[in-house]
Amino acid sequence: MRYELYYWPSIQGRGEFVRMALEEAGADYVDVARCKGGMDAMLRLLDGKRVARPSYAPPFLKAGRLLIGQTANILLYLGSRHRLAPADEPGRLWAHQLQLTIADLVVEAHDTHHPIAGGLYYEDQRREAKRRAGDFLAQRAPKFLGYFERVLERNSKGEKHLVGARLTYPDLSLFQIVAGLRYAFPRAMRRLDRKHWRVAALHDRVAERPRIAAYLASDRRLPFNEQGIFRHYPELDAD
Amino acid sequence: MRYELYYWPSIQGRGEFVRMALEEAGADYVDVARCKGGMDAMLRLLDGKRVARPSYAPPFLKAGRLLIGQTANILLYLGSRHRLAPADEPGRLWAHQLQLTIADLVVEAHDTHHPIAGGLYYEDQRREAKRRAGDFLAQRAPKFLGYFERVLERNSKGEKHLVGARLTYPDLSLFQIVAGLRYAFPRAMRRLDRKHWRVAALHDRVAERPRIAAYLASDRRLPFNEQGIFRHYPELDAD
Repeated sequence: MRYELYYWPSIQGRGEFVRMALEEAGADYVDVARCKGGMDAMLRLLDGKRVARPSYAPPFLKAGRLLIGQTANILLYLGSRHRLAPADEPGRLWAHQLQLTIADLVVEAHDTHHPIAGGLYYEDQRREAKRRAGDFLAQRAPKFLGYFERVLERNSKGEKHLVGARLTYPDLSLFQIVAGLRYAFPRAMRRLDRKHWRVAALHDRVAERPRIAAYLASDRRLPFNEQGIFRHYPELDAD
Repeated sequence: MRYELYYWPSIQGRGEFVRMALEEAGADYVDVARCKGGMDAMLRLLDGKRVARPSYAPPFLKAGRLLIGQTANILLYLGSRHRLAPADEPGRLWAHQLQLTIADLVVEAHDTHHPIAGGLYYEDQRREAKRRAGDFLAQRAPKFLGYFERVLERNSKGEKHLVGARLTYPDLSLFQIVAGLRYAFPRAMRRLDRKHWRVAALHDRVAERPRIAAYLASDRRLPFNEQGIFRHYPELDAD
């Protein structure tokens, strides 16, 4: 079966968490909206009147007749099919719990540049963004990264993975968080990476996995830019 | 087995989505932090160094030896055990997808009064809150409520439930969303309720379910207040 991933074609965004899992799994998939006519196909599934179970927003994944929305939900599905999650229920719930915490962090990272409204330009909320980003870098990012550092430290199977002794989908997502934060806030992350070295090391190990390394070097990996979740506005970074 | 729910004792907050499911299921549970010594017990599970799988934040649920965090994850677990989710995988994923979309709405409803930082007082971000709440009521709340209205309308088993022919946990959570928005934004919701009458009717039907009605009338149901997610600040409501 060839999966169909539907996501905005010009940003990593939330779709990237799904792409990372599909790539690590070596799954057969097509990134539909990046193909000719794909944007129309995506909008038909998003807004079409005959879609029985519409998604609120991309990304969504078509898997045969199944149409699955919400990033963490897609990963819940892929995780159990591609050995990217534990086989036992407690382990599956723990992996999903971590993924949902990553999802919370994603919202907060996004809102550093859009604290007032996603529908307004950054330039229309620049002053508020400066305040929110300041709080994010001083309080929130350290709290989240400290949490994941602690989870790695306490993993009874070793601190190389968040869950158990093998790679699971939240490891891939945490890689993407670190990559995104390093892009958006390079000055702040120099300090945060030193303090959360287990998280930083996990990022580096994930980047070296053969399928991930090949993906990151390919043109399937879109570059970070100032339309996505993680945006580099130097004025929002630490001094 | 008696479940142990851990959540802040003075607000409905995110814990309320779990309470609603436990109450509708008629489950045996104790709301630990509302009991004597319960706050200490909660903080030990949150910050204790020997907790192998710590939560980032409340709520979390102890179910025998399992400790489960993240609201939607707790509901995923309870849903399958108490017939509050479909038995088939596509239905379970669809219910969870809707729950995660409700979780997104919860963040945005909260951030109307805290657009800059959760750690600052409302009074320190009042002007920004006015802007964010204006956008929320004009753009975001109608988009979310319109989405759930559409989901109800398209349910092939009838528009009384979000998923299939029976009540599932996202129905209970959507009740809580409507109740919260009516509390926080009574003027705006008069208009939004009229427009999204299927969602409003779902709220009213859930409120009349025997176990839910008994719960809402009991002192187990905390009142809304200005420490929770849904806060009534008249200046943030529509004119």
